[in-house]
Amino acid sequence: MRKGVRLCITGSEVMNGFVLDRNTQFFASELYARGLELVESRIMPDDPQQIVKTWKEFSATGDLIVNSGGLGPTSDDLTVDLLCDWLGDTPVYEPHAEKRTRYFFEKRARDKTRVMSIDVALRQARIPSRATAIKNTVGLAPGIFIPEIPFIALPGFPDEIKGMWAEVLAIIEQLDFNRSAMRIVPLWGVGESQLFSELEKPEGVLVGVHALPWGCRLFLRCEPEHEPALEVLASTLSTRYPGQIVENPLVNVIDSLKRQNLKLAVAESCTGGLAAKQITDLAGVSSVFQGGVVSYANSAKVALAAVPAELIEAHGAVSAECAAALARGVADKLEADISLSFTGIAGPDGGSAAKPVGTVFIGLFDRRNGKTQVGKFFFPFGRERFRNASVATGFLALWQHLEAAQTKPFPLSELN
Amino acid sequence: MRKGVRLCITGSEVMNGFVLDRNTQFFASELYARGLELVESRIMPDDPQQIVKTWKEFSATGDLIVNSGGLGPTSDDLTVDLLCDWLGDTPVYEPHAEKRTRYFFEKRARDKTRVMSIDVALRQARIPSRATAIKNTVGLAPGIFIPEIPFIALPGFPDEIKGMWAEVLAIIEQLDFNRSAMRIVPLWGVGESQLFSELEKPEGVLVGVHALPWGCRLFLRCEPEHEPALEVLASTLSTRYPGQIVENPLVNVIDSLKRQNLKLAVAESCTGGLAAKQITDLAGVSSVFQGGVVSYANSAKVALAAVPAELIEAHGAVSAECAAALARGVADKLEADISLSFTGIAGPDGGSAAKPVGTVFIGLFDRRNGKTQVGKFFFPFGRERFRNASVATGFLALWQHLEAAQTKPFPLSELN
Repeated sequence: MRKGVRLCITGSEVMNGFVLDRNTQFFASELYARGLELVESRIMPDDPQQIVKTWKEFSATGDLIVNSGGLGPTSDDLTVDLLCDWLGDTPVYEPHAEKRTRYFFEKRARDKTRVMSIDVALRQARIPSRATAIKNTVGLAPGIFIPEIPFIALPGFPDEIKGMWAEVLAIIEQLDFNRSAMRIVPLWGVGESQLFSELEKPEGVLVGVHALPWGCRLFLRCEPEHEPALEVLASTLSTRYPGQIVENPLVNVIDSLKRQNLKLAVAESCTGGLAAKQITDLAGVSSVFQGGVVSYANSAKVALAAVPAELIEAHGAVSAECAAALARGVADKLEADISLSFTGIAGPDGGSAAKPVGTVFIGLFDRRNGKTQVGKFFFPFGRERFRNASVATGFLALWQHLEAAQTKPFPLSELN
Repeated sequence: MRKGVRLCITGSEVMNGFVLDRNTQFFASELYARGLELVESRIMPDDPQQIVKTWKEFSATGDLIVNSGGLGPTSDDLTVDLLCDWLGDTPVYEPHAEKRTRYFFEKRARDKTRVMSIDVALRQARIPSRATAIKNTVGLAPGIFIPEIPFIALPGFPDEIKGMWAEVLAIIEQLDFNRSAMRIVPLWGVGESQLFSELEKPEGVLVGVHALPWGCRLFLRCEPEHEPALEVLASTLSTRYPGQIVENPLVNVIDSLKRQNLKLAVAESCTGGLAAKQITDLAGVSSVFQGGVVSYANSAKVALAAVPAELIEAHGAVSAECAAALARGVADKLEADISLSFTGIAGPDGGSAAKPVGTVFIGLFDRRNGKTQVGKFFFPFGRERFRNASVATGFLALWQHLEAAQTKPFPLSELN
């Protein structure tokens, strides 16, 4: 019985940092979601010896080898020739790919935008004679499947891989794999250590924890025979942490606003535009998002969100009072129903004993009842994580508010 | 003489696809920029046998091993114990990390938000007795350097790695590496094909090109004996493209504003807070950055930047006129000397034949002469790249404006 999958990612452009490898994550999440194990991913340059050495080492394990990269017409596209050398095979033109390559070659030759002989262009239409081709609907080079190893070769471009993925999954379905049962639980407001002190791990269930600024993400995984224990654990978690299990609160917030036909605005000091940026990362928010203000200077808080200068003088810009005034002020200015505000000290400078770096006040105003709530939090994790944690916490608090969640891991208190 | 660097990236959260490994690219580009070779990157789960097997295999090559991940308090943080087992060493508390861990533990214990014994918390303050610690300014676990292998252990979190990077580079400087001569030239407003039609490549110099939305980044690399030819090429580039070679225009903009004692404000529609976010990513900008407005809805453009409603009706929100009014309006509102504005169509929806998705108008107002300039650009690369290219272009144009650069690859025209 085969154990898992091993990836070999080839490409000098990845090794010199020009290109971020997104393929490992794509394969990893696709395999994991199907209860399959990705054992290892090795990233290396287009070096023939290093590549073949890796394939040989991988093939000794019996795992499925997936190679990504090196399919194409140029001299650093090595996969087909290296496979043929290794297996004592010869390359042949794959009819479908040959036809498409000739078609595009004719087209390009007319455009005069490319200078390449047809022989060079056709290099990418080759596969080892014993291989099965995997159709490439985006680029020209077909994928390759060699059952006896087993070995799958795919291009390096993510969009070409995605175009082949259904066929690859069909191949994988036919291979004998160990499969686990699995469940993923995103848990807000609970740290790794708190979780383990409150949680009893049932026999046979692996619990992986990924710590995040806003809590953690749990990975429950077990052999098929232990699946009932996994189900019990998952349901224990839902009972113990109601309103805290959610994948992306911001997406829920936007859905909720659309459903309730409410308009949102944000006022940001320490988060400096990050909340607005994350909201507008999502396409189609313009029906619920009015906009925001980045009131970095104190005068901007006065000018953009009508915070009284005397309030700032009395309580400071980083205060519950200022957070409340910002939330209220931006909602009025932008005629929003709901607003969030952030004011705090991102650091590295600007902290004091009473308000150290990492302190943030989050305000939430709801025009429907005219009330403003404020929470004080402490995220002393450096500038970037401080800002991410602040914004994530604000969105979770807003989601809980909009959906009237019973349990609030990040509670905001009403300010009088 | 050592050949290069080998990476071992450990973390089950990477292998199940929930985290994208960005560390390989970070190490790759940092090493490449210094003429060092990244030979391989292996990504694997927190599996003791697999990790130690990889370290042993790597150590036989004489390359520097860099391990990322597995430093922390929990039971799947294995690096320190595996290192001690492998080397026959014992873990000791690193004094600085021990002090910080105890400090944060006390603080958290008072908050009652965390339940972890001090013994568990202190696990992350340990290093092998023979190791040198690398100070962690973001998280708690120190990095580890063991010269005799040579071996560097770093945490998995990118921001913690970045906080340690200066110290890691100092260590790398002391090791004997094969090095190439290397020069990186960020070239704004020049595409790959234009560049190669204008550039003669000298003998012995490798020219790599990484295409970017705002131009390209050139990597000039050669063996030490060809360094004079590399220098000639680099100086040819500076002469041919004056005012277009700059690593990060935003950093230059902030320096320039500080030097000239000018206050900046931004008004963002399509970029939705990204410009403000990037400005406030930099620590210490509060002396020159007043703030900004995210005027997503048209009513927000009126309320926050005093854009006349009739102007929007006459010309549309995506227009040179609106960009100019936004820039002028936000500068007045926030009493800024200089302002940038962005209004465009990020997509996927909202385009028209006259103003397709990817169109953006960038405005620049300068109170010193009372003039407003506007440029129209087209970045039809999808939502994320559109927003990045828009903001980058705005910052470059502003830098050129502030420094009165002669050549302007992204010129803005004065609007009457």
